Amino acid sequence: MKIEEARRAIKELLPEKRYTHSLGVSETAGRLAEKYGAEPAKARLAGMLHDIVKYFSDERLEAMIRRRSDISDNYLNYSSKLWHAPCGAAYVQETYGIDDPEVLCAMTYHTTGKRNMTELDKIIFLADYIEPGRDFPGVEEVREAASRSLNEAVFLELQKTIVHLLDKRQKVYPDTMEAYNEMVGSF
Amino acid sequence: MKIEEARRAIKELLPEKRYTHSLGVSETAGRLAEKYGAEPAKARLAGMLHDIVKYFSDERLEAMIRRRSDISDNYLNYSSKLWHAPCGAAYVQETYGIDDPEVLCAMTYHTTGKRNMTELDKIIFLADYIEPGRDFPGVEEVREAASRSLNEAVFLELQKTIVHLLDKRQKVYPDTMEAYNEMVGSF
Repeated sequence: MKIEEARRAIKELLPEKRYTHSLGVSETAGRLAEKYGAEPAKARLAGMLHDIVKYFSDERLEAMIRRRSDISDNYLNYSSKLWHAPCGAAYVQETYGIDDPEVLCAMTYHTTGKRNMTELDKIIFLADYIEPGRDFPGVEEVREAASRSLNEAVFLELQKTIVHLLDKRQKVYPDTMEAYNEMVGSF
Repeated sequence: MKIEEARRAIKELLPEKRYTHSLGVSETAGRLAEKYGAEPAKARLAGMLHDIVKYFSDERLEAMIRRRSDISDNYLNYSSKLWHAPCGAAYVQETYGIDDPEVLCAMTYHTTGKRNMTELDKIIFLADYIEPGRDFPGVEEVREAASRSLNEAVFLELQKTIVHLLDKRQKVYPDTMEAYNEMVGSF
């Protein structure tokens, strides 16, 4: 799938604000890929598509999780806000025939993170957090870290994400905690 | 083992400050047990003994973890500050023949917590945090919660413990996160 086709596809499926966010993630991911030695074309494509099913109903996403044996049922025990990530990867595979495992993996884990993230996984995870449209407490610190070190920025994002969930008394998906624990003291 | 024997045993093995802390945990645990319907004698005993091997060397504790098939090797991937909890239970079983599974379980999980904690598990976990000698930011809030609800106090302790570890960029043991996730929205 070409980046321009991906852009048109999400323009159909997302409201204006989320579409603009996706353009920002795509652009930021491409720039991070150039800086940190991943493939910019894959980063731009995964960034463009990462939220493609964000506005599907919970029922539709739940059905997809139950149908796809490669999506963990454990997602159903956690916030439905997490579901669009693995379901987005499944959707672009089924709908557009995207079979690049690196692109699909980066889309799948863009919200939770996981252990053993590839550079591309880290780039999409990070771009989603720091794209220019984002404006929340702490984002500038992560942007600054991203200018120095991909790992430092991803670690900070994991740390801030988990603290934010705890502050709101929400569950933390195990993959997120495993990503954090793995990176403690590792860079 | 009688509570007075337990007191003498820890007096031999712990420095003054930790001994005083243990008396406080024992007393607080007994009081919480009376309030929340657990057995006060078990609570006082587990509280008295919970830190019994706290001043054993890391090498000795590591050897115990490797030798005992009922202690997860995964502890070795996390801070050695966690090791005295399961090792304390193993030690009192081997040394004093304590075989009460409730006492041993409460000692084992007093630092990390876990899913499906019993009332006694929660009481020892909580008493360790709020005994009168404790004085750190947030402890008063947990003490107040403990006067209203065991679950609310344990949840607050888990939340504060995890945030504290994140602030210090330290790993979080999976049992602790599982305990937190299980309690989110459950009371």
